[in-house]
Amino acid sequence: MTRDSIDDRLKMLGITLPSAAPPAASYVNAAQTGNLLFLSGKGPAPSWHGRLGREYTTEQGQAAAREAGLQVLATVTAELGSLNRVVRVVKAQGFVLCTPDFEQPHAVLDGFSDLMVEVFGEAGRHARSVFGAAALRQGVPIIVDSVFEVSPLEQAPA
Amino acid sequence: MTRDSIDDRLKMLGITLPSAAPPAASYVNAAQTGNLLFLSGKGPAPSWHGRLGREYTTEQGQAAAREAGLQVLATVTAELGSLNRVVRVVKAQGFVLCTPDFEQPHAVLDGFSDLMVEVFGEAGRHARSVFGAAALRQGVPIIVDSVFEVSPLEQAPA
Amino acid sequence: MTRDSIDDRLKMLGITLPSAAPPAASYVNAAQTGNLLFLSGKGPAPSWHGRLGREYTTEQGQAAAREAGLQVLATVTAELGSLNRVVRVVKAQGFVLCTPDFEQPHAVLDGFSDLMVEVFGEAGRHARSVFGAAALRQGVPIIVDSVFEVSPLEQAPA
Repeated sequence: MTRDSIDDRLKMLGITLPSAAPPAASYVNAAQTGNLLFLSGKGPAPSWHGRLGREYTTEQGQAAAREAGLQVLATVTAELGSLNRVVRVVKAQGFVLCTPDFEQPHAVLDGFSDLMVEVFGEAGRHARSVFGAAALRQGVPIIVDSVFEVSPLEQAPA
Repeated sequence: MTRDSIDDRLKMLGITLPSAAPPAASYVNAAQTGNLLFLSGKGPAPSWHGRLGREYTTEQGQAAAREAGLQVLATVTAELGSLNRVVRVVKAQGFVLCTPDFEQPHAVLDGFSDLMVEVFGEAGRHARSVFGAAALRQGVPIIVDSVFEVSPLEQAPA
Repeated sequence: MTRDSIDDRLKMLGITLPSAAPPAASYVNAAQTGNLLFLSGKGPAPSWHGRLGREYTTEQGQAAAREAGLQVLATVTAELGSLNRVVRVVKAQGFVLCTPDFEQPHAVLDGFSDLMVEVFGEAGRHARSVFGAAALRQGVPIIVDSVFEVSPLEQAPA
């Protein structure tokens, strides 16, 4: 796999990205500074509603985390024009809505992490951390915060 | 508005910054690395004490988030000498103290986000994420973590 | 203290680092991008299990935070070959497992922050923020997320 085949790889994997949800207030979906792209927190569709350890099993949570990952990829694509400009996934923080006695929030984020490796290979491996949140917007079970390293915009040929 | 008028704009908006609270332990209010300024988490005055969904309404929470934003601006000013050195607001994470059934933590952070756009214009729009926290220091209703892109220190003329 | 004596300083302080725990899933312990090293969240040994405000006092929490700090230093050492390549500690986020009425999560992180200053001197002072988490993996009382500025890899002499 060469560095410019990520968009193709996505097709080979049969992954269709959702459309990136527009920002709902005074913020942006992604902010680039130098080679770093900081993303807004992304979650699964609002039809997801509930807590790990009560409404959702770890396996269901992983599916929600994968959906959050697809939203992240859709946002990066909308921002950069193509996933081919991703150098690597740098960091992810997973915030999991769960009951106080739920002790597997890290396993939930695997749904996100596995997707990144599936799509980007070794460049998809990221530093990460996972926390149980007391509340999340609209009651979704997970929100993922992420930072990507991206290649600079290529100059248009003269 | 030119890039060096942020301090003036603050005056025009009638915004007076509080004094930046000094660090209370073995940490600093802000750490610059390259063109990135990472701030310590900032909240409203300790007279705020309580949870969204119980002691505070979303509107009150937005006022607290705006106060946190003023603390952030005060800290950036103390660190850089002037807000004019801010290139853009890159990222904000809002941690909202709330009841487990509160589903509008994102709306609370609008008080912070709107202030940033008021002060910096488009450069104030940032990537963001919001989470319900189980507890916050001294029971304040919100703490905001933030990252700014700043211009390098100008060299003193020879 | 010169910039290349951190490993020696650790010995003088009588600090022996634990071995860095390997990643348990599709992620890495640390991701470097430019001069920034983003770490995965680190906590104390899994023998720690419980909440601040219930099973643990603030003092015990500080000991757990120091243990998390030793895991962070072990991870940085494993990643860079030596702590001497650390330019400064940039940022730490502490996520503290606690009861809803616990209002001293920031005091708990002092165990981490003090260790960084002990080891790196002024370069150990970092921007930081602290939040009460509803749940953490395996019920550990604290997880610390961190970002370091590191010097570029030196070129091997010709």
